[in-house]
Amino acid sequence: MTLTQITELRTCYRTGLLDDTIPFWLRHGQDRDFGGFISCLGEDGTVIDTDKSIWAQGRTAWMFSTLCNTVERRPEWQAAAQSALEFLRRHGRGPDGKLYFTVTREGAPLRMRRYVYSESFAAIASAAYAKLSGEGRAAEEAVAYFATYLRHSFTPGVMPAKTDASTRPMKGLAPLMIAIVTAQELRANLGDIMVQGASCTAWIDRAIAEIARDFYKPDLGALLELVGPRGELIDHFDGRTLNPGHALECAWFILHEARHRGHDPRLLQLGLAILDVMWNRGWDQEHGGILYHTDVKGLPVAEYWADMKFWWPHNEAEIACLLAWTLTGNPKYANWHALVHEWAHRYFPDPAHGEWFGYLHRDGRISTRLKGNLWKSVFHLPRMQWYCWRLLDPTPTAAPQPA
Amino acid sequence: MTLTQITELRTCYRTGLLDDTIPFWLRHGQDRDFGGFISCLGEDGTVIDTDKSIWAQGRTAWMFSTLCNTVERRPEWQAAAQSALEFLRRHGRGPDGKLYFTVTREGAPLRMRRYVYSESFAAIASAAYAKLSGEGRAAEEAVAYFATYLRHSFTPGVMPAKTDASTRPMKGLAPLMIAIVTAQELRANLGDIMVQGASCTAWIDRAIAEIARDFYKPDLGALLELVGPRGELIDHFDGRTLNPGHALECAWFILHEARHRGHDPRLLQLGLAILDVMWNRGWDQEHGGILYHTDVKGLPVAEYWADMKFWWPHNEAEIACLLAWTLTGNPKYANWHALVHEWAHRYFPDPAHGEWFGYLHRDGRISTRLKGNLWKSVFHLPRMQWYCWRLLDPTPTAAPQPA
Repeated sequence: MTLTQITELRTCYRTGLLDDTIPFWLRHGQDRDFGGFISCLGEDGTVIDTDKSIWAQGRTAWMFSTLCNTVERRPEWQAAAQSALEFLRRHGRGPDGKLYFTVTREGAPLRMRRYVYSESFAAIASAAYAKLSGEGRAAEEAVAYFATYLRHSFTPGVMPAKTDASTRPMKGLAPLMIAIVTAQELRANLGDIMVQGASCTAWIDRAIAEIARDFYKPDLGALLELVGPRGELIDHFDGRTLNPGHALECAWFILHEARHRGHDPRLLQLGLAILDVMWNRGWDQEHGGILYHTDVKGLPVAEYWADMKFWWPHNEAEIACLLAWTLTGNPKYANWHALVHEWAHRYFPDPAHGEWFGYLHRDGRISTRLKGNLWKSVFHLPRMQWYCWRLLDPTPTAAPQPA
Repeated sequence: MTLTQITELRTCYRTGLLDDTIPFWLRHGQDRDFGGFISCLGEDGTVIDTDKSIWAQGRTAWMFSTLCNTVERRPEWQAAAQSALEFLRRHGRGPDGKLYFTVTREGAPLRMRRYVYSESFAAIASAAYAKLSGEGRAAEEAVAYFATYLRHSFTPGVMPAKTDASTRPMKGLAPLMIAIVTAQELRANLGDIMVQGASCTAWIDRAIAEIARDFYKPDLGALLELVGPRGELIDHFDGRTLNPGHALECAWFILHEARHRGHDPRLLQLGLAILDVMWNRGWDQEHGGILYHTDVKGLPVAEYWADMKFWWPHNEAEIACLLAWTLTGNPKYANWHALVHEWAHRYFPDPAHGEWFGYLHRDGRISTRLKGNLWKSVFHLPRMQWYCWRLLDPTPTAAPQPA
C-alpha cells in the first residue's frame, strides 16, 4: 500500500464516519420525546418501527462514548451516549434483573431472550461512558453487566439450552468472542479489573485458548461456530454451518489482542491462521463479497438466504484484513483488504440518503432498502470506520488509538 | 379452461405425484434401520442431516395414509405411513406429553418448541391412519393430539407468549388456519366427532368466524397474520408483515369448507375475497411467482429474504386458484392458476433427480439445492398434486374426492 493510498483510505474512513454515518443516526435515530435511539429506519431515515432494541441502546451509547473518548468530546455525541445509556438504565431491565431484547418506544417490555448479548453491549457502553463522564455508577454497572454475561454464558445450566443437552451437548463460538471484545473494552476504559473472579486479561486468555483448542480446525480449514464439549465436529446442519464474517470478526479480536500485547507472536499466528482459512471460506470467487454462510463440507446450508451479502461481515472482514496488514506488512492482506473494501463501497452505500444498505443479494443487488432494524444500528459500520481510521492515523495525537 | 387443458393438467398432477414426488421420498426418505422418515436430503436424495422432524413424521404418515384411503391401498404406501406414525408414537413425546420438534435419527430428544404444530400434524396423520387401518388406538390418538393442539393454542396463558402480552397482546392467523384444516381432516376420516367440547364443524365455524372478524381487512385489502385481541392492526414490523402464500392457503381451507357444505355462499364469498386481495399482494408483477413476504403499507419488511420464492406458497396458490375456478367457473381464477402453475413448474422441478427445489431467488434462480429439510418434506408438493388431481377427476370412482 502506498502512502497516497493510505492517506486516501484514512480520509474515506474519517469522512464516512464523521460526515455520513454519525450525522445520519444523530439526525434520524434520536428519540427526542422518550430518549434513547430508534434503529428501525427506512432508506431516507424515516422511522418505520418505533420498537427499541436494547442491543442498539448499548451499542449506540458505546459508539458515541468511544468517539468522545478517542476523537473529540463533542456535546452532541456526549448527549447521544447519555440518552441511549439512560434509556437502557431506565427501561432495559426485567423483573429478574436480566436485560430485555426489545421494549416499546416508551420503554414497556416486549421481548426477553435466553441469551445475554444485551448485557455485553450494556457492559461496553457503561465502561466507555464511565471513562467519558467519570461516573462511578457507570463503571460499577459495566462490571455488573459483564458479570451477568459471564455467569449466564459459561456456568453450565444457567442459560437454557435450545437443543437437549443430554442428547447433544454443544457450545458456541459467539459467547467466547463476545467475552473477548467485552473484556478488551472494559480493560481499555476501566483498567484490567477483576470480574467474576478473574481479570479482564485472564478472561481474554481463557476465551482465546478455548477457541484455539476447540473451534479452530486447521485440518478442516475452518473456524467452527458450534462444536461438541471437547471440540467435536457436530455433523448436522448446525455444526457444519460456517459464518465467515463472524469468524473474521473473531480473527481481528485476536489480532487486536496480539497488537495490545506488543505483537505477541502466538496470538498473531492464531489470528492470521483464522483469517486465512475463513477468507477462503467466505470470499465469493464468482461475484465478490463475503458469503453469509457456507458449509464446512460443501453441502447445502439449511438457511435458504445463505448466499446473501450482509453489510456487517464486510465491515468485520475489512477490519481483519487491514489490521493483519498493519501487523505483518504482508501484501496479501493489503490485497484482500482492497478487494473487500472496493466491493463493499461499491454496493452498500446509499449516495441518495447516506449510510449503508444492509442486505444485498449475492450479486450486489439490494434486497431490502431499510437502513436500520433491531440488528442494524449504530455499530458495525461506524465501528469499522472508526477502527480503520485510527489504525491508519500515523500522527501521534491526544486521541488514543483503538485500545 | 378447455377439456383438453383439464385432461393435461390432471395428468400433470397425477404423474407428478405418483411417478416423481412419492417415489422420490419412498426411495430416499425412509429410514430402514430406525423407522420413520429422514427429510433432510440433498438434490439427488442423499441424506445430508439425519435429524428427524416430528412435523415430517406426521405429515408423511398423513400423506401416505391419505393416498391409501383415496387412490389405492398400495402396500408400500401403507408401510410408509405406518413407519412414520410408529416412529412418532415411540419417540415424539416429551416428558410432559407435548411433542418434540426434532429428535435424532434414533429418536433421542433434540428440540421442544413453544407451539403445537407437531400435535396438529400428528392428529391428521392418526386420523387418516385410523381410517386406513381401522385401529381404534389411532383414532383416540388423533382426538388427543387435536385436543392438546386446541388447548395450547386457544386457552389464554397455556402457550408462553413470545412478546410480553401485557404490553402488546397479539394473536396469530396460523393457529386458526391449522385448527380449520385439522378439524376438516378429522371429520373426513373419523366423522364429525367432539373434541374439547365441540364438534369438528363447530371448531371450523369458530375459527372461520374469528378470521373473518379480526384478520380479514377489506379496507386494507389484506388478510393479516398477527393482530391485536380485537383485530387491531399492530403498526410494527410483525403486525404489518403479510405472508401471501399462507393467506392463499387460508383461502382454500375456507373454499374447501364452502365446497363441503354444498357451495355455502357466505364461505364462498369469504374465501374468494381473501384469495382476490392476497393474490394482488403476493403475485410478483415483475418476475412472476408469489413473493414470500410483503408489508401491508408497502414499507420494507424486516426479513431480508422477503422477496424470495419458496415452493410451498406456490403449491397453496395453485390449489386456491384451481379450487376457486372449479367452484365459480370464473375465468379469472383459471388465468391466475395458469400463471402460478406455469411459473412454478418452470422453476421449481429438478428434471435431473426428481422432486422440486424449495428455495429460489426472486427471479427464479435456485438459492439452495436441497430437496428437503426440517420443513420441506412429504407435504405441500404432494398434497397439492393429490388435491388438484382429485379435484379435476371428472369420473366418479371408488376413490373419494378430497373430503
